[in-house]
Amino acid sequence: MSSPVRAIFLVAAPDQPGLVARLAGFFSEAGLNILDASNHTDLPEEGGARFFMRLVVDLTALASARAQQKLGGSTTRKALEASFQGLCTELSATWSVRYSDVPPRVALLVTRESACFYDLVLRQRQGELPCEIPIVISNHPTLEPVAEGFRIPFFCLPVTAATKPQQEAQILELLRRHHIDLVVLARYMQVLSDTFLQEAPPVINIHHGFLPAFQGAKPYHQAHARGVKLIGATAHYATKDLDQGPIIEQDVARVTHQQGPEEMVRVGRDVERIVLARAVRAHLEHRVLVEGRRTIVL
Amino acid sequence: MSSPVRAIFLVAAPDQPGLVARLAGFFSEAGLNILDASNHTDLPEEGGARFFMRLVVDLTALASARAQQKLGGSTTRKALEASFQGLCTELSATWSVRYSDVPPRVALLVTRESACFYDLVLRQRQGELPCEIPIVISNHPTLEPVAEGFRIPFFCLPVTAATKPQQEAQILELLRRHHIDLVVLARYMQVLSDTFLQEAPPVINIHHGFLPAFQGAKPYHQAHARGVKLIGATAHYATKDLDQGPIIEQDVARVTHQQGPEEMVRVGRDVERIVLARAVRAHLEHRVLVEGRRTIVL
Amino acid sequence: MSSPVRAIFLVAAPDQPGLVARLAGFFSEAGLNILDASNHTDLPEEGGARFFMRLVVDLTALASARAQQKLGGSTTRKALEASFQGLCTELSATWSVRYSDVPPRVALLVTRESACFYDLVLRQRQGELPCEIPIVISNHPTLEPVAEGFRIPFFCLPVTAATKPQQEAQILELLRRHHIDLVVLARYMQVLSDTFLQEAPPVINIHHGFLPAFQGAKPYHQAHARGVKLIGATAHYATKDLDQGPIIEQDVARVTHQQGPEEMVRVGRDVERIVLARAVRAHLEHRVLVEGRRTIVL
Amino acid sequence: MSSPVRAIFLVAAPDQPGLVARLAGFFSEAGLNILDASNHTDLPEEGGARFFMRLVVDLTALASARAQQKLGGSTTRKALEASFQGLCTELSATWSVRYSDVPPRVALLVTRESACFYDLVLRQRQGELPCEIPIVISNHPTLEPVAEGFRIPFFCLPVTAATKPQQEAQILELLRRHHIDLVVLARYMQVLSDTFLQEAPPVINIHHGFLPAFQGAKPYHQAHARGVKLIGATAHYATKDLDQGPIIEQDVARVTHQQGPEEMVRVGRDVERIVLARAVRAHLEHRVLVEGRRTIVL
Repeated sequence: MSSPVRAIFLVAAPDQPGLVARLAGFFSEAGLNILDASNHTDLPEEGGARFFMRLVVDLTALASARAQQKLGGSTTRKALEASFQGLCTELSATWSVRYSDVPPRVALLVTRESACFYDLVLRQRQGELPCEIPIVISNHPTLEPVAEGFRIPFFCLPVTAATKPQQEAQILELLRRHHIDLVVLARYMQVLSDTFLQEAPPVINIHHGFLPAFQGAKPYHQAHARGVKLIGATAHYATKDLDQGPIIEQDVARVTHQQGPEEMVRVGRDVERIVLARAVRAHLEHRVLVEGRRTIVL
Repeated sequence: MSSPVRAIFLVAAPDQPGLVARLAGFFSEAGLNILDASNHTDLPEEGGARFFMRLVVDLTALASARAQQKLGGSTTRKALEASFQGLCTELSATWSVRYSDVPPRVALLVTRESACFYDLVLRQRQGELPCEIPIVISNHPTLEPVAEGFRIPFFCLPVTAATKPQQEAQILELLRRHHIDLVVLARYMQVLSDTFLQEAPPVINIHHGFLPAFQGAKPYHQAHARGVKLIGATAHYATKDLDQGPIIEQDVARVTHQQGPEEMVRVGRDVERIVLARAVRAHLEHRVLVEGRRTIVL
Repeated sequence: MSSPVRAIFLVAAPDQPGLVARLAGFFSEAGLNILDASNHTDLPEEGGARFFMRLVVDLTALASARAQQKLGGSTTRKALEASFQGLCTELSATWSVRYSDVPPRVALLVTRESACFYDLVLRQRQGELPCEIPIVISNHPTLEPVAEGFRIPFFCLPVTAATKPQQEAQILELLRRHHIDLVVLARYMQVLSDTFLQEAPPVINIHHGFLPAFQGAKPYHQAHARGVKLIGATAHYATKDLDQGPIIEQDVARVTHQQGPEEMVRVGRDVERIVLARAVRAHLEHRVLVEGRRTIVL
Repeated sequence: MSSPVRAIFLVAAPDQPGLVARLAGFFSEAGLNILDASNHTDLPEEGGARFFMRLVVDLTALASARAQQKLGGSTTRKALEASFQGLCTELSATWSVRYSDVPPRVALLVTRESACFYDLVLRQRQGELPCEIPIVISNHPTLEPVAEGFRIPFFCLPVTAATKPQQEAQILELLRRHHIDLVVLARYMQVLSDTFLQEAPPVINIHHGFLPAFQGAKPYHQAHARGVKLIGATAHYATKDLDQGPIIEQDVARVTHQQGPEEMVRVGRDVERIVLARAVRAHLEHRVLVEGRRTIVL
């Protein structure tokens, strides 16, 4: 059976009585069925409580008379959004929506390592990642044949310290031209500038260490020297503070003294690609809210 | 800060439009704030979709005029329940409620092994398990000093094949007299009869195997002979079909060829007590719905 | 730095005093350095203790005068093996050897699912799996383009109940002609006959269930119906008893009531390919001894 | 069946040809059977390769004529050690030995938290930890009744900044008087001075964070603020550099945004006690070699 078209709403608001009922009631009054709902109330050490909710709404009845009445005569997505904005203004809430029939467009940035690249494309082809991957961008030509094998346009933009501003501008231009909604750094071995991150859509990075331990370069060598018994990987949104962005997903694998740094790299590669795939999936399913330095994954 | 008194509702109903809004709306109209809500819709291979919801409601405003109006003049818990029953009848829903200021009363049944016994009592004393443990029942005197050390009344009821019906009747009498809400088999090495299970409150058992593999006796020896690489434990509600009741929680630990059955017992003991504690906690927090042979843990 | 050529010996013997010293002494007397050694003594419930040892020996000094003297004048691998056979006869030991400069030749058998296929080939290309993959055999043409992309000859041998004996004979002929040392069933959806298994080299299969639970077809649907909280995968040597062969590796992943059978398939796919890769790697590194229904992985 | 008396040797040496054969041969020539042997060669980035070996030797034949001959006429443990020292001098090796019939004597240092304290004592009573626990030392009287319940002498030595030198001297005196071989800090909430650590037997500490992340105080609060998805615990030898000693064991547990710092403390407590118990067990079984900032656990 084919799934109905769904709208997925993410809402963040200061906590207040009646929030679940009012948000659910909004869709109920429009005759739209809620397929899935989850919420969380955060009690920070400072400041007031914060409320977060994810609602998956069946849009089948959006054309009904009941929806028309609730939405002020129109039954377009625009009308739905305008009406929901009205409620959110009352609640001092921020919100966003994604529609299941408009798959996000993802650009992969890679360098020379292929594991994460293959992994993401194969998952997307198998239907695990609800997105399109219209372009791959790299600072090296190494992976062009792989991209070609999958028939994804490949843009090679080499970079040096001197040409970095221009190269980043070229990337931004590509992202704009291809209407990219999400950038995934699938082992892209370049630090992105503040300027780039401010102008780009959200960027997810995979760090091959169990952050916040082992920030910076060669984390497996650091981990080996320190004699840790578990190694990990961390997927996070890229921010101007390197390796400090909000963490979306992490996982670890056990290692022993028998495994030198090279072996750790091998074990770590399996962790990295699973962690990155889970993080990208959570973002594409519109489950991730950023709250300060943390994420709420609903 | 002390937490407000909360009512925790669990609801199961045939899926239908507007359920989240109607259930949340019920409390909202009475002026009662929803502190936490989660729901799940199950799509079985046969039969229609089923909807499950857990609502944690702040009862602080139960004495308010608004609640009084919604609940037909009275603001007792009885009135709240009667009014909620009215809604659930409309929705063909079943439901149950637990109040945070009425901790469930748990009886532990043990035999000679102390690990799970110690573990549960220590967790309860540390505030991890929201319950009282007014009695311990055993078919052996071995653990009486431990119960005494914790000042929990200990009832020793030895049992043989011939005296089983009488012994089980004695246990039932103890459960009744002490108003027991939940029985936990913390390594109680006796099979309970159908008759007992029908008359007793819910019973949670810990099986030292990764069910459904290795049912029956000596699961670690079975596991060793089969050469498995992981061993596990399963906490489930006891039903008349031995080792077949709905699973609440499971976990595993890695073993190697180096570990004989005795060593597996040792590794398994750690898994058992953690799995049992998690399952008991989920039950006490009123998170577990039984749906046929499965559980939904909200 | 390039590694020296190594011989990896696996030995199994009835336990007896002095085994470690005698086996290690054999190589020491020939002037051959032991790079790595591990052993295990198994104490079965029936029968006497069994001893297992893996020795990784540096062959650099095989041409030395000292080796020549110990090996009876010759310093070929054949002479080394003959001399070691002499010792093993004294010890009533069985043994086998693999040389690091003679990578095993692996045939992949696939049907239509590509995840395990891609995974194994990519790992081999990255140097994680010390082997060659000279052929891929399938009963369906689906994955031919993938094999072609990797430039691995692809043989499509469709099969029906009526043609099974002939098809299996064709596979055996291909295995022989290409000097295959190991067959990996990377989601090959056909049961292999006893006859085939007796004539073929070792066969490793991946079962998408946590054996011995959920043998047979549709294990994820079985697992979902039973309401388990963890799903798993098992890599084992194929034997005539379906899903009963010696287990090489297993792992699990956590699932909840929220995940229907399809979602379990997705989660399970990640477990399957990691478990299969680990098992194939252990076999290729000559770490796996089969002892009755179990494996010893040194 | 009762196990034979065993000697467990740990050896560390610069790597050189023939080490396994010479070390195993030493015992073989004395007619002593090796029950278990494992070794590891470490290839550091700087300096030469290092070799580590653990040998478990059956002492049953120590009184035999053959042993007498090899050990120069005497068959005492002292003679065995003197003879082995001779070999180790030739190999430039360091070594240590522990005998299975001389259980190490462990002092527990605690403050007010009981979870790790209960856990270690219960494991010791169940035979999981091959040691004696003759004393418990605390800076608070809180856990005295628990120690009394287990009939372990309890020494309460309160401490302030001003009295620290005297209090540590008192602890050292207790350790000496009770012939303590190992100190376990089972949530002892005081930093120990350099002076103390230099004079005390080995000290194992449990840090409730996944070191090297979250060093210092309140690691769970740090972890929550950073939004990590896994929390961990680390058991390590205490050294003068706080939280920097060689790591013996680590593990993690998954957390979500739903879990505030208090809930993390609860989840972490389970990880802590399992990690600490594993580390203490490895030390007691004479498996741990310290190599610079790392440990080798054979």
